[in-house]
Amino acid sequence: MSTSASVPKAGDSVASIDTPALVVDLDAMERNLAAMAAFADAHGVRLRPHAKMHKCAAIARLQMAAGAVGVCVQKTSEAEALAAAGIDDIYISNEVIAPAKLARVAALARRVKLAIAVDSAQGVERLAAAMRDAGATIDVFVEVDVGQGRCGVPAVAAGALAQHVVSHAPPEGGLRFAGLQAYHGAAQHLRGAAEREAASRHAASLASAARASVTAAGIACRLVTGAGTGTFAFDAASGVWGELQAGSYLFMDRDYADNAPGPNTPRFEHALFVKSQVMSRGTSHAVVDAGHKSHAVDSGPPRVWGRELDVVNVSDEHAVLRGRGGAAFDALPGVGETVWLVPGHCEPTVNLHEWYVGVRGGLEAGLIEVVWKVDARGCVG
Amino acid sequence: MSTSASVPKAGDSVASIDTPALVVDLDAMERNLAAMAAFADAHGVRLRPHAKMHKCAAIARLQMAAGAVGVCVQKTSEAEALAAAGIDDIYISNEVIAPAKLARVAALARRVKLAIAVDSAQGVERLAAAMRDAGATIDVFVEVDVGQGRCGVPAVAAGALAQHVVSHAPPEGGLRFAGLQAYHGAAQHLRGAAEREAASRHAASLASAARASVTAAGIACRLVTGAGTGTFAFDAASGVWGELQAGSYLFMDRDYADNAPGPNTPRFEHALFVKSQVMSRGTSHAVVDAGHKSHAVDSGPPRVWGRELDVVNVSDEHAVLRGRGGAAFDALPGVGETVWLVPGHCEPTVNLHEWYVGVRGGLEAGLIEVVWKVDARGCVG
Repeated sequence: MSTSASVPKAGDSVASIDTPALVVDLDAMERNLAAMAAFADAHGVRLRPHAKMHKCAAIARLQMAAGAVGVCVQKTSEAEALAAAGIDDIYISNEVIAPAKLARVAALARRVKLAIAVDSAQGVERLAAAMRDAGATIDVFVEVDVGQGRCGVPAVAAGALAQHVVSHAPPEGGLRFAGLQAYHGAAQHLRGAAEREAASRHAASLASAARASVTAAGIACRLVTGAGTGTFAFDAASGVWGELQAGSYLFMDRDYADNAPGPNTPRFEHALFVKSQVMSRGTSHAVVDAGHKSHAVDSGPPRVWGRELDVVNVSDEHAVLRGRGGAAFDALPGVGETVWLVPGHCEPTVNLHEWYVGVRGGLEAGLIEVVWKVDARGCVG
Repeated sequence: MSTSASVPKAGDSVASIDTPALVVDLDAMERNLAAMAAFADAHGVRLRPHAKMHKCAAIARLQMAAGAVGVCVQKTSEAEALAAAGIDDIYISNEVIAPAKLARVAALARRVKLAIAVDSAQGVERLAAAMRDAGATIDVFVEVDVGQGRCGVPAVAAGALAQHVVSHAPPEGGLRFAGLQAYHGAAQHLRGAAEREAASRHAASLASAARASVTAAGIACRLVTGAGTGTFAFDAASGVWGELQAGSYLFMDRDYADNAPGPNTPRFEHALFVKSQVMSRGTSHAVVDAGHKSHAVDSGPPRVWGRELDVVNVSDEHAVLRGRGGAAFDALPGVGETVWLVPGHCEPTVNLHEWYVGVRGGLEAGLIEVVWKVDARGCVG
């Protein structure tokens, strides 16, 4: 934990923020928030943003105030952390298997509106047992593999698993079948808009087939939920998804910005930055004090914001910068200068930090407006 | 933060550990600890292991009890966290530039035996000012670039910067010149032992040249400190380094184990694992509940321990496994089964977790012996 000496304070200048720090440009974030809310409104779809991205109850509240019906998370401990911080409509869009953890899910389902995904008979049985033991009920989505090859049943098997869920319906059981989870993660970062559209169409056809399988089993399928920042506009246009789970739109990392923009899609701005500082300077490179313990590199290096510099190497606590196109010595920042990094991947970057520093009025001359805790930081269980 | 519901307890079985969890095989770790202590003893070099790796005061104490003179860290906040947990001999083997942070360094230097690295005139001036303001003294190592092209002055410039340090010597100033920091990070993971040996020789020649530059300036250079788990045996044999900073030897991640072993080097065992669990199962793959928010992938994916399975994809909260060489369906673990992962890179993996679960008697049938806090988790500032 950082010491209290380095906790940023509202009202202080951006210049006062110690490095490395996770900084949100509140003006940009609010424009992204409004753009996505307007999109969902215009297309008649619900928005349930993924809080696995921001892990922050304060941000979830802003999203819900702008019309989101609730949030998604991936982990039981994330749901617990956000519920403890006041969020009361949470969907664990992922499978939970361990009985001890399902007991926690059941306890939480007695306190907030809770939903969860399943993709196996064992998972349904264990979930039903936990709900029965706790006298709790929960909304259950059957996850369908719509092209990613990760979790989810094949589309044709959705009806049988939905029947299994329904066999534990209230009042005897605690499982309310709520619809289908259909998310194609691998489609989100296909660079070409046409590629992403094709992947979305394929996912839509599989989700439709799964819905037909459920309906053929005599079960109403009221909602298909899914979609991410790379495909949500295509997914919404398909008419298959009734709820969008996109999360990264709010911060827009380097990896999503590298996608070619699609048609009829709002343009989102970078709103999340890591503030860093030059700590060493060679004749043709500079080194900043933020390595991959400060910004995740699973999706590639960060981008330097507002300077003609490239990140050429990242290690645990350092990133090495060079001038773009072999820029001269004088173009490199000197020891002590601030360098703003746009993280390669926002989600695991947020997970590395204890708080967000929210700034108003720009990264150069702005003021700190708010410090938000990353409530679900490190909640991997 | 995980809830108290999932905190492991000493005396419980390994089977009771909730997933994902960071687990240390204490028997293997202690063998690694003893092997490195014996090596340092046999070669007449001091050991100052890098605590940026484990970030844990309890482990630092074990290393010091086995003969280490103290520990290294990379960050001011790491030093503060370990000092607060009782470690009293710490070397920040890295540059610190921000005046506010240097004031914290100076405050810490009044409480524990502290050292720091410098590689610029600005850095020396700012450090000297902070020490003067606090009435503190600190050991200072001049960092030399011995081949990595990251931080450090060229070897020929070491003497001039050492003179700059000496110009702030006690009793008027607070900087005690202590020697040279010489670490070649890029050499550590060259796969062939001969390649690593060549890189170590090159680094040794530059460190020797830097030492000659210091001596020519009329300054005694008592210590060259550096070396990592990939090169320490070559570095020790060179006679140039008097202190080894290797850290990862204690846990041995997948990336280090992929190095071809060198001659005259102890064989270290994997001692750090992420316990995971199968949460979903396809016809030709299984999915476990530990993605790169639980084990860092900057150096590649984890290895599955004790099973003929490969990790073929890692996302934020999932890892996808397939049978090695296209193994049949029945070879895949079923939903709920435990899978042990050897992290690709131990250092950023540790940084993702709140505690270590130390087990005695093996990963399958053992018992939890101890739970250690990752004291400096998230200390990036």
